[in-house]
Formats: sequence, C-alpha cells, structure tokens
Amino acid sequence: MTLQVLVIGIGTGPDHLTGAAIAALNRVDVFLVADKGPGTDDLVSLRDEICRRFISSPGYRFVEVADPPRGPDRERDASTYLQEVGSWHRRRAARYAEIVRAELTDGGTVGFLVWGDPALYDSTIRVVELMAETGLDLELTVLPGISSVQLLAARHRIVLNRVGQPIHLTTGRRLVAEYSPDLGDVVVMLDGDLACRGLVETHPGLAIYWGAQLGLPDEAVVSGPLAEVIQEIADMRQAIRDRRGWVMDTYLLRPGC
Amino acid sequence: MTLQVLVIGIGTGPDHLTGAAIAALNRVDVFLVADKGPGTDDLVSLRDEICRRFISSPGYRFVEVADPPRGPDRERDASTYLQEVGSWHRRRAARYAEIVRAELTDGGTVGFLVWGDPALYDSTIRVVELMAETGLDLELTVLPGISSVQLLAARHRIVLNRVGQPIHLTTGRRLVAEYSPDLGDVVVMLDGDLACRGLVETHPGLAIYWGAQLGLPDEAVVSGPLAEVIQEIADMRQAIRDRRGWVMDTYLLRPGC
Repeated sequence: MTLQVLVIGIGTGPDHLTGAAIAALNRVDVFLVADKGPGTDDLVSLRDEICRRFISSPGYRFVEVADPPRGPDRERDASTYLQEVGSWHRRRAARYAEIVRAELTDGGTVGFLVWGDPALYDSTIRVVELMAETGLDLELTVLPGISSVQLLAARHRIVLNRVGQPIHLTTGRRLVAEYSPDLGDVVVMLDGDLACRGLVETHPGLAIYWGAQLGLPDEAVVSGPLAEVIQEIADMRQAIRDRRGWVMDTYLLRPGC
Repeated sequence: MTLQVLVIGIGTGPDHLTGAAIAALNRVDVFLVADKGPGTDDLVSLRDEICRRFISSPGYRFVEVADPPRGPDRERDASTYLQEVGSWHRRRAARYAEIVRAELTDGGTVGFLVWGDPALYDSTIRVVELMAETGLDLELTVLPGISSVQLLAARHRIVLNRVGQPIHLTTGRRLVAEYSPDLGDVVVMLDGDLACRGLVETHPGLAIYWGAQLGLPDEAVVSGPLAEVIQEIADMRQAIRDRRGWVMDTYLLRPGC
C-alpha cells in the first residue's frame, strides 16, 4: 500500500498559506510534528490556528514525536557537522517510519507542516527520503510556501537582486569566510549570532536589510548602513529573545550604500 | 491624497495565491497591466481567471498600458544594458503615473499583478519607486508570491541547498563566466537560450533540474546529468515554444552527480 506523504509549506503565518497548501492540509490523516521542547509554544499555537482555520475535513490527528538529541554543535569542523546532521536525520526518519507503520496500517496520507518553504534550508524532504530507505513505500508531494526571505524583501519593499545581478543565499556559519561583493546581494539564514558583524571593518560600504519574527505579531525590521545599525539590530534581537524565549531572523547585505 | 499601491505576487497560478494576496486583490480600484503584445494570451487569460475566482468586491477595473519599446538587446555591454533598462523603467513609470493621475483623481488603490514573486528578477517595485519620483504621493505594499524557483524545487522534490551549503541565483547572461562549484547549487533565471550548455565540457559532473511553464497546464520537468539530458531539454523547450508561442523556464545546477 503506497503511503502518500505531503510536505506542506505553511509560509510565514496563516495569511500566507496558498490555496494548494490548504487543499493539501485537508487530505492529511496524520500530521507528524517534531516536539522540539520548551520555548516553541508560539510555533505550536500557530500550527493549531492554521489547522482550526483551514481544515474542514474532520478526522485528522497530530502525533508529536520527540526529537532525537542532536549532540553538541561543532561549529569548526565541517565534515563532523555533516556526519552529525546526517545521523540525526536518520534517527528522526527511523522514529517517523515506526510511527507511520503503527498509525497507518492500511495506507493513507501523512502530512508535515514546514514553516516557510520546504526547499530552503529545511530538513523535512531529506528525512522523508530516509524514511523511504527504511523500506516504506511512499509517494512524496511538496507544496511550496512563502519563505521568510520573501517576506523580508516584501517588508523592506525591495527586490532581492539588483538589475541583472545575482543573489547569494548562505548561512551565518559560512558568511565571513565566503563574502565577496561579486556574489551580488547576499541573504544570510541560520545565523545564530549576527555573523555580519565580522564584515563591518572589512566591507565598510555594506547596507543591511534585517527582519526578525517575520509574519508574526512581534515582527521587527531594520535597514541602513551595516556599521551604523548593527548595534540597534543586536539590541532588538536580544530584546525579542528575552521576551519570547526564541528569535528567528534573516537579513540581506547589499554593497554600495 | 496618498495613493495606495499594492504589488501583488500571484505566484505560479491560481492555486498558489496566498490569503494575503487574495485580500489585497479585493482592495484594488485600478489594476495596471502591461500590454506586452501578441503571444502572451496565456498569461492574460490566467490573470482574468484569478480575478474572476478571487475578487468578490465589484467595481475594480483593468487599464492596459502599452509597453514602451525596449530597443535592441545589447547582450555584450553591461553598462549600456543597465542604462537601457533604467531608461525603459522610467518611460514605463511616466506612463503609469500619467494614467493614475487621470484615473484616480481622489486617491484610491492601484494594483499590479506580478507573476511569481515581486522580489525576484521583477521590475515592478523599481517602476513604482520611479512613479513616486514623478511627484506622486504613494504608499507601497508588497505581497510575496510563490516563485517559479520554489515550484521547480517542489516538482523535483528537492531542497535548493545541500546541507550547510549556499544557493546562488543568477541569470543566463552571467552563468558561464561566473560559474564555480564553490557557489553551491546554482539556480538560473532569465535564460533565453540554455546558457548551461556552455558548462557541459568544463564541468562534467553537473546535474540539472529543469522546469518550464511551471504551474501551467503544459508544465514540463526534466532532471539528470547535464551532459546526458541537455538535448532532451532543448527539444522540449523548442516544442513548447512552437506550440504556445512562448516558453518560460528555470533550472538548478548541482555539482557531484
């Protein structure tokens, strides 16, 4: 019996769901959700609101799955990092596959809700591929969602690229070593600590367009010359973290301000 | 009187509109649409379908604006190209501003429908900024939409980045001179002629994930080693162009196949 697996991008909040995503939500029998522990209440209640507002077909259920421990984050060693991420994905996939076998003995449809877009720095699709490797017969369908990068651009009312120029998306971990103005406009994701501070001295002409909690009620945006606004951004970021217990942000760096 | 200007990303088809975009559609008094001449009937009828399905408030109207001529495309000279694009944007903005002054004498809301996402290789936001420079008092709001890049990834069921690696978005015009595996996965847009053919010899390990007319009924996708599938892609691309009069495609290049 082929299992249908829907990986549904829910965008950056209830107003950003697409019609295709809403239709997909209504086909799901079992939603698998990672229980990421304390400090993520905001995301859980957002997920609940989305289901209440958009699912009209009864009978779906949520199964919360405790996330396997990830081990210490070894920032400096790229190959160890890759191995650890891979092993963590495999453990997660094994747990999911076990639950699916127990919950959907006659087939059916499993859904994953993905914040933003499943195609951008998200592990769900890889975990589903690893579920298939455990021997599950599954068919994967992906529904794109509005990513925080797109909402960042919309809130700042900018185009991500300059005319005819490229856009480079990278991680906080890579930024300082990798940065060059030749990359075009650079969007930074997964940055736990404003790595762009490391470019203030070396690239004095950079502008930053920053946003946190994009799509949520306490959304914050700041833009300006990097050197001038970086402290304001760091302070706002810390204030959000103090208030909510977590902060999720992204930013664009553009040369020539 | 402040004019509201809504730049609305309509994604890649009616099923990809977000709730926020639908709400925005319903606030528009006048939609300005560029009449791009023959061969674009598909996009015009798609636009009509979107309005019929999603606009419940009566009284909106469309104003078609003939696009100013763009002049010959001088591929080789980047500075001339920039100047020509800039001058073309200014002429377009002047026409739009004139129409807005005539149509909305007491203020109101102007809407632009943008295929995909207004933040990715689209000129609408720039044209609106130039409208403001003609002296119009306007307030711009941008609604993000699902881009063809996101639908490309969804259809191929891939993540655009490899774990911890960057993503680089560039144009067909830049690709061959710019390409390096260090850029990460490379997404190519605005490519009129499959510039990736120029990498077949120099980078034999590349895989391609290609898609055309993404989100439309005659959508086509192909993936595989670049050297093996490039001719199939070129043939499909030509067949679509022969059948529809136009083709819109994008692709991702990934090292290590």
